[in-house]
Amino acid sequence: PSKTHEEGAEARQTSLTKPPGSLGVLERLAVRLAGLQGTDRPKAENVAIVLFAGDHGITAQGVSPYPSDVTVQMLGNFIQGGAAISVLSRELNASLEVVDAGSLAPDDLPGVVTDKPRRGTGDFSAEPAMTAAELAFALAAGRRAVERAANAKPDVLVLGEMGIGNTTSAAAITASLLDLPPVEIVGAGAGLDDEGIRRKAATIADALQLHGLTGALADPLAVLQAVGGLEIAALAGAMIAAAQARIPVLVDGFIVTAAALTAARINPACRDWLIFSHRSFERGHQIVLQALEAEPLLDLRLRLGEGSGAAVAVPLLRLACALHAGMATFEEASVSGPC
Amino acid sequence: PSKTHEEGAEARQTSLTKPPGSLGVLERLAVRLAGLQGTDRPKAENVAIVLFAGDHGITAQGVSPYPSDVTVQMLGNFIQGGAAISVLSRELNASLEVVDAGSLAPDDLPGVVTDKPRRGTGDFSAEPAMTAAELAFALAAGRRAVERAANAKPDVLVLGEMGIGNTTSAAAITASLLDLPPVEIVGAGAGLDDEGIRRKAATIADALQLHGLTGALADPLAVLQAVGGLEIAALAGAMIAAAQARIPVLVDGFIVTAAALTAARINPACRDWLIFSHRSFERGHQIVLQALEAEPLLDLRLRLGEGSGAAVAVPLLRLACALHAGMATFEEASVSGPC
Repeated sequence: PSKTHEEGAEARQTSLTKPPGSLGVLERLAVRLAGLQGTDRPKAENVAIVLFAGDHGITAQGVSPYPSDVTVQMLGNFIQGGAAISVLSRELNASLEVVDAGSLAPDDLPGVVTDKPRRGTGDFSAEPAMTAAELAFALAAGRRAVERAANAKPDVLVLGEMGIGNTTSAAAITASLLDLPPVEIVGAGAGLDDEGIRRKAATIADALQLHGLTGALADPLAVLQAVGGLEIAALAGAMIAAAQARIPVLVDGFIVTAAALTAARINPACRDWLIFSHRSFERGHQIVLQALEAEPLLDLRLRLGEGSGAAVAVPLLRLACALHAGMATFEEASVSGPC
Repeated sequence: PSKTHEEGAEARQTSLTKPPGSLGVLERLAVRLAGLQGTDRPKAENVAIVLFAGDHGITAQGVSPYPSDVTVQMLGNFIQGGAAISVLSRELNASLEVVDAGSLAPDDLPGVVTDKPRRGTGDFSAEPAMTAAELAFALAAGRRAVERAANAKPDVLVLGEMGIGNTTSAAAITASLLDLPPVEIVGAGAGLDDEGIRRKAATIADALQLHGLTGALADPLAVLQAVGGLEIAALAGAMIAAAQARIPVLVDGFIVTAAALTAARINPACRDWLIFSHRSFERGHQIVLQALEAEPLLDLRLRLGEGSGAAVAVPLLRLACALHAGMATFEEASVSGPC
């Protein structure tokens, strides 16, 4: 981020016709985007949404009320325009690329970019979710998606995910990286009841034992390989690549934030490029946000995923930029300052 | 509000391709707008912003760091397009009407609707802010503004205010209607320091004594007359008129919410038509929101007024409506429900 442009934006904010600081988070957002984009007049008009999908072997343990089939069915829904993120991308005039980073689909799906090392992960209650080579492939799939998106020179990148079972993987990653008991992190996901939540937490605790991921400071790559998801690895790879390409990333809910935690452990410099869009209703999200010292923009009790929360935050960025660029200064408007 | 349309919207939300409830506040917003607008497909496209301005005699007691001149200077800025609300109205493609409901301006200002019973209120530390006739005029000015706005059949009405000194009036109204010590409500307004805040609270406490507004359940009209503002009375009149015209109102920050509390005390049925847009950084706002059992949509530490926070919430309404109308059902998309 450019300190010079941040300071310039800060000075401009102070000169605008309003009590200093009175636009709160919107001022800080404009200042931060100015620094990230290296410009006096930050923008959030050109928005690229990239959604990574993957399936999870752990669903064999009954951790989701939905069958794995839904992942591939939803890939069709994203492309046909009926999913929440499809509607939001249209409303926001944003591009939407859907990447099959590891679903169970046997064939390439029309309209979807297929870039996967395998179909679904292994059941991490019994075996590693993926091999080291498959992890490297998935991280690179994230990078490749950012390279494609970068061609359109987006002002902001929205990252989303889909994958039945992926709150279980995200909770396992979070528990391991933060060395917390899974029971403190696990939530209802797509709609588990209390008994289901207890079972999910126990499944994760056993798996972390199995893979030797408790106690010591865990290696983020080892954690991703053992209990991660292919779409989660792709998200982590995409965040690191976006930071290197100097593209600000709007982070969605629990799963994308767990990927952000992993990315920040792999490459701490990428943290600066992450803007946290919302606090979701999924229990573990608040814990990961705190670990990343993130203050999200919205708190709307969303728990859908797909990048939907990040997309909903896009208008805030746009309005923050419009206010920064379009308001008159005290001098221009001949308005008196404080006595 | 139409219970039938609320229930229909609720049923539709359950049929859409997402875990039930996973769009959180956005689902409830769509359902509520369906009930208020009496339609299966609520909208927030056509937005009218009405901003009422007024001056305050209490500024003679040094309750604001800005001189009263700024109220009239800002009226010019609203019309010339340089104020925050001007930028937001352009970005949102919303209409903006500015009503001089009681500024000190000696003449009609170009581009502004002048509809005021007097220039500025009396200094309520020594005399009533206005007479009963002036209060009736200001309430009716609010109604007249809604009648003008209603011609364009707005889906939603955004109400805002401007008036140096008006957080002092709003705090006095709130303290009286909620029977709380002013020191619990008073905040920094446009930028007072701690000593200024203490002085402001003491000024209000003395005034409530003077006007006999402590203790018993206060009459909202008597409170408005004694310590109110002309723009605050106009806001209250506008909210009652909007509810009667079945137009949902997006309520802004502390001052508009204090007017909402007054309106709800005068006519409790209008409460249903109020959507609370944000929790501001001004101290008393949270207290008034609680008294109205309001859960605002945003919490962005705004404290500008002008209707800016309500305007910033407009995209949330639009996206909530777009999701409600545009998402596919499980059946349409051939997606499996929970096991």
